[in-house]
Amino acid sequence: MEQTYPSLLLENAVSELSKLPGIGRRTALRLSLVLLRRDEKEVESLGNALISLRKDVCYCRVCHNISDSEVCHICEDPSRDSSKVCVVATIKEVMAIENTRQYRGLYHVLGGVISPMDGIGPKDLQIDSLKSRVAEGKINEVILALSTTMEGDTTNFYIYRKLASLEVQVSVIARGVSVGDELEYADEVTLGRSITARTPFSEIMKM
Amino acid sequence: MEQTYPSLLLENAVSELSKLPGIGRRTALRLSLVLLRRDEKEVESLGNALISLRKDVCYCRVCHNISDSEVCHICEDPSRDSSKVCVVATIKEVMAIENTRQYRGLYHVLGGVISPMDGIGPKDLQIDSLKSRVAEGKINEVILALSTTMEGDTTNFYIYRKLASLEVQVSVIARGVSVGDELEYADEVTLGRSITARTPFSEIMKM
Repeated sequence: MEQTYPSLLLENAVSELSKLPGIGRRTALRLSLVLLRRDEKEVESLGNALISLRKDVCYCRVCHNISDSEVCHICEDPSRDSSKVCVVATIKEVMAIENTRQYRGLYHVLGGVISPMDGIGPKDLQIDSLKSRVAEGKINEVILALSTTMEGDTTNFYIYRKLASLEVQVSVIARGVSVGDELEYADEVTLGRSITARTPFSEIMKM
Repeated sequence: MEQTYPSLLLENAVSELSKLPGIGRRTALRLSLVLLRRDEKEVESLGNALISLRKDVCYCRVCHNISDSEVCHICEDPSRDSSKVCVVATIKEVMAIENTRQYRGLYHVLGGVISPMDGIGPKDLQIDSLKSRVAEGKINEVILALSTTMEGDTTNFYIYRKLASLEVQVSVIARGVSVGDELEYADEVTLGRSITARTPFSEIMKM
């Protein structure tokens, strides 16, 4: 049944909130009523944080990661290994990889993967700028870290071909059975790949 | 592990969003990344809707329901039965009762229930204004629609005593087995009350 709202302001807040994914009208109403009981200052800082996130956001000129300045703090960090570039689809993957604290190189954010179904072609992604970055000659390894989907694999292959004329090593992140997973429950493709791409035990000792 | 954010704007948006109930930092990040991909105009209207909800909200001078004007549209509606007032804790209950379309009287929003544990006494609620409303003499029934908790029952009793000197009928909404519920699963207190407060079948026929 159509809900009637006692106030247009409330109805407006509910309909704006419920445009967010995973937030229905019930949750939106609950959140709105919580906001009504909060300090005006607190609600203002929430609203302004969202507006300014979208309005004042910068993207790094070099790697296209989200940033507060023209060049992001990862690209500017002199302690990082600028000979390695990890290619990811979105900033979510940058954050996930940074969280592992296992990677000290730089990134390149494509802004998505090639997906003809969604009308996303190579020109919509930061692939040309990746090529010119590599063409400068200071990068000796490009690590492809895209999802193992048809779109991800297509994009991997496209980038591999695009960089073929340049002297750079192109590698792909390892696929295999997750750490902590039971072998018997691993799917065949993953298990197959983890056997084909097995690692010498002496290298594991070094990790 | 502590998440590091590539941008202060993003970190700020995430921490503001995660102050909302039921939204953790993971959900807040997911929502922030969605907002980043939205039109600037859309994000602005979300932010402004929240700010103006809190800043420009009015409460009805008569019933204390949320409103867009000094007197809410329910109190102003001449087609409603102004001899009946339904007492509720918050505007959520007003919306729930309005949704039933079974009630055509007016409301009185207390703003909570008496709860010494939370430091809420009768003076923090709109009980005095209820008494003066009733004292005007135009109301002949006050319907108490608070939750069946110790706090709700205490508040019911307090209001009942407060209105005892005035000529007004005080009633409480019916407690009983929910429509559609199996009797065998109803709790004893509810089932007991539904037997004690049984309704003549002839009255059911009229409903």
